[in-house]
Amino acid sequence: MTHIGIIGAGVAGLHLGLFLQQRGVEATIYTEKTPGEQFASRLPALVGRSGHTRERERLLGVNHWDAGSNEFGTMNIVLAGEQPLGFAGNLERRFIAVDMRIYFARLLEDFVARGGNVVFRDVHAADIDAISEQHDLLVVATGRGGLNALFPRLAEHSPFDAPQRYLCTGLYRGIAPNPDNASAIFVPEQGEVFEFPIYTFEPGITGLGLEAVPGSALEPIARMNYDADPAAFNAAMIELLRVHAPAVHARVDPATFGLTRSLDLLQGGVTPSVRSGHIRLANGKYALALGDVRAINDPITGQGANSASATAWMLGAAICASERFDEAFCTGIEQIIWDYIGPIAQWSNAMLQPPAPHVVEFMVAAAQFPPVAETFVRMFEQPVRAWEMLSCPNTTGAFLKGHGWKGMPVAA
Amino acid sequence: MTHIGIIGAGVAGLHLGLFLQQRGVEATIYTEKTPGEQFASRLPALVGRSGHTRERERLLGVNHWDAGSNEFGTMNIVLAGEQPLGFAGNLERRFIAVDMRIYFARLLEDFVARGGNVVFRDVHAADIDAISEQHDLLVVATGRGGLNALFPRLAEHSPFDAPQRYLCTGLYRGIAPNPDNASAIFVPEQGEVFEFPIYTFEPGITGLGLEAVPGSALEPIARMNYDADPAAFNAAMIELLRVHAPAVHARVDPATFGLTRSLDLLQGGVTPSVRSGHIRLANGKYALALGDVRAINDPITGQGANSASATAWMLGAAICASERFDEAFCTGIEQIIWDYIGPIAQWSNAMLQPPAPHVVEFMVAAAQFPPVAETFVRMFEQPVRAWEMLSCPNTTGAFLKGHGWKGMPVAA
Repeated sequence: MTHIGIIGAGVAGLHLGLFLQQRGVEATIYTEKTPGEQFASRLPALVGRSGHTRERERLLGVNHWDAGSNEFGTMNIVLAGEQPLGFAGNLERRFIAVDMRIYFARLLEDFVARGGNVVFRDVHAADIDAISEQHDLLVVATGRGGLNALFPRLAEHSPFDAPQRYLCTGLYRGIAPNPDNASAIFVPEQGEVFEFPIYTFEPGITGLGLEAVPGSALEPIARMNYDADPAAFNAAMIELLRVHAPAVHARVDPATFGLTRSLDLLQGGVTPSVRSGHIRLANGKYALALGDVRAINDPITGQGANSASATAWMLGAAICASERFDEAFCTGIEQIIWDYIGPIAQWSNAMLQPPAPHVVEFMVAAAQFPPVAETFVRMFEQPVRAWEMLSCPNTTGAFLKGHGWKGMPVAA
Repeated sequence: MTHIGIIGAGVAGLHLGLFLQQRGVEATIYTEKTPGEQFASRLPALVGRSGHTRERERLLGVNHWDAGSNEFGTMNIVLAGEQPLGFAGNLERRFIAVDMRIYFARLLEDFVARGGNVVFRDVHAADIDAISEQHDLLVVATGRGGLNALFPRLAEHSPFDAPQRYLCTGLYRGIAPNPDNASAIFVPEQGEVFEFPIYTFEPGITGLGLEAVPGSALEPIARMNYDADPAAFNAAMIELLRVHAPAVHARVDPATFGLTRSLDLLQGGVTPSVRSGHIRLANGKYALALGDVRAINDPITGQGANSASATAWMLGAAICASERFDEAFCTGIEQIIWDYIGPIAQWSNAMLQPPAPHVVEFMVAAAQFPPVAETFVRMFEQPVRAWEMLSCPNTTGAFLKGHGWKGMPVAA
């Protein structure tokens, strides 16, 4: 009988574990955090889960957070600058946002309550061979403990050697809700601001994700020590919203605005990296990389959790359909997953660069043609299509022309 | 400089610790659970916090849960039976309900974030003398570890030797919200059902508190093993609501109804006990009993958390006003607290008995006269007044007469 070892209890590990469990395939999840440690940990990310992820959650019976004033069906996009432009578009299906500490802890509890095996321990690279003895296949879904380094980084798909954004992501009080709405503000040469409602340990909270271009005026807050002076941090964030996100700032109550608590802030940066999808271990068994281990992107396109879930299901389906977990199995599923995550990596990396003229043109047209605006925002729920739309100026141009776009206006 | 030791991090210990901290008095809280362990623990209680408690929370800056679809301003009271009667009344100020695991963890985090000292350890009765050496006064706000037994039980105020209700308290999905409303159903000879919205780890959840008279038809579910057969447990609860709480049952969706998870169920019973308020330790210092240690009641009147908070502030104010924590101090504050909790104990114990005729008359009148209904529900936010109203048939009678009540109808 097949027995899968899953190292890591993030979205990839949990969705794979729950998927296999539902189909009667034995799986053991190895994780360093108990649910309690997860609940009490630092904010690990700010995640909006899209319709396709939510559909998988419904099928797994872990859609515990529907309709908690934490969904959004409309995205408000702003391209800031001297002549700012903005547009709103309706997503095909509502996104949802839940504090991922609660999400991870509860899904792990679900896995256990349904009879799943969980081993609470740190796993380091040196432990992999021994653990693999217990399983037919190892799935590595966390990069901690040097596990990342087991899978060679692929330079041809990893164009950056350092983070292209400094992140300053947190949960905030004192922003009046804009029900069912999210904001994405692109500030040329500075970075981005994302804003949406989220279900967390207290009600009425807003998630704010700031991405600062290194060296820009947004960088200091991403390096600011909140604990050293919370009031100064909060004041700096209000000022930043005033300048760069006035539509969000208009909903700020300065008397109550602030980070909910020190633990609810995440600062740092991601070096986008694509790695090999599998390795052969000394005993002849295989380890597959899943989720962030396989490809970690800057969160600018919001695809990390959603693609972790999508690819966990691809892998889960392949496991259920196979009896041998050999080189051919690994090569096959590696390619299937790559077809999905390759475009996401390329799109995410492109978004970190100054926008190409055809992307700016897309946004200018979106501000005039609602169907174009809708197509723009729906890229966030259809990431493969997003990169089809954006990767080639001719494709974008043909699409815009089809919606009546006559080309960029000539300056007077 | 005064330094207070507080053993226990429930409502009493936390509110006292935060109160003293806000006023610059050194306090150390001893508790066996880290915030993470608290988050991941079993549901400890189902609590509605009243307006006076919420006011103290605002003053302490820990009112993190306002307006989370978890408040109620209207109480719907039903006296079930062959000729059921019901009435609704508006509370003076909205109650609020939050999962106390989240509440305890977050308030402890607040205490720490503000510079408070917390020692994570079990404390047993044998440790008290050593701990008291570090402090000017010990406040015992948890009964665990045999600490209860340090304070002699007062037989004259503790009429029961065993629980008068078996409790079956839990968090449930699949009950359509009745926004801003709570229910209290009194079923003669069987027990009580309480129902209200609550903020917990997921949205849209209802707290259901069932109190079963031993030997009654309600008892089996309070002893049922949920884990052995969750579906049977949920079916039994639906059936129970159908029979005894039809207004709640009307909002149940059988397809989704159920306990949220095994950890979200609390079964057991409380033997109401009043204990001495203070003891002298071997080294001549004193230990004061606070909250449930001083007086634990059946939760039927919903006063446990609220009186723990109220009396924590009484004690905090007394500590701030005193420089000596001797016999006179302890005797004085013990009496002040008793004036508040004595009536609550009497009211709570009276509610465990078959209702006296004047209480039934009060409810019959409330069903006809809205101002009487309002007075009835407001007893839950003014517990001392509640016992003034109910302790003497003459007082109740005079009140009802003043509202135009002509006496109980004579059966035809």
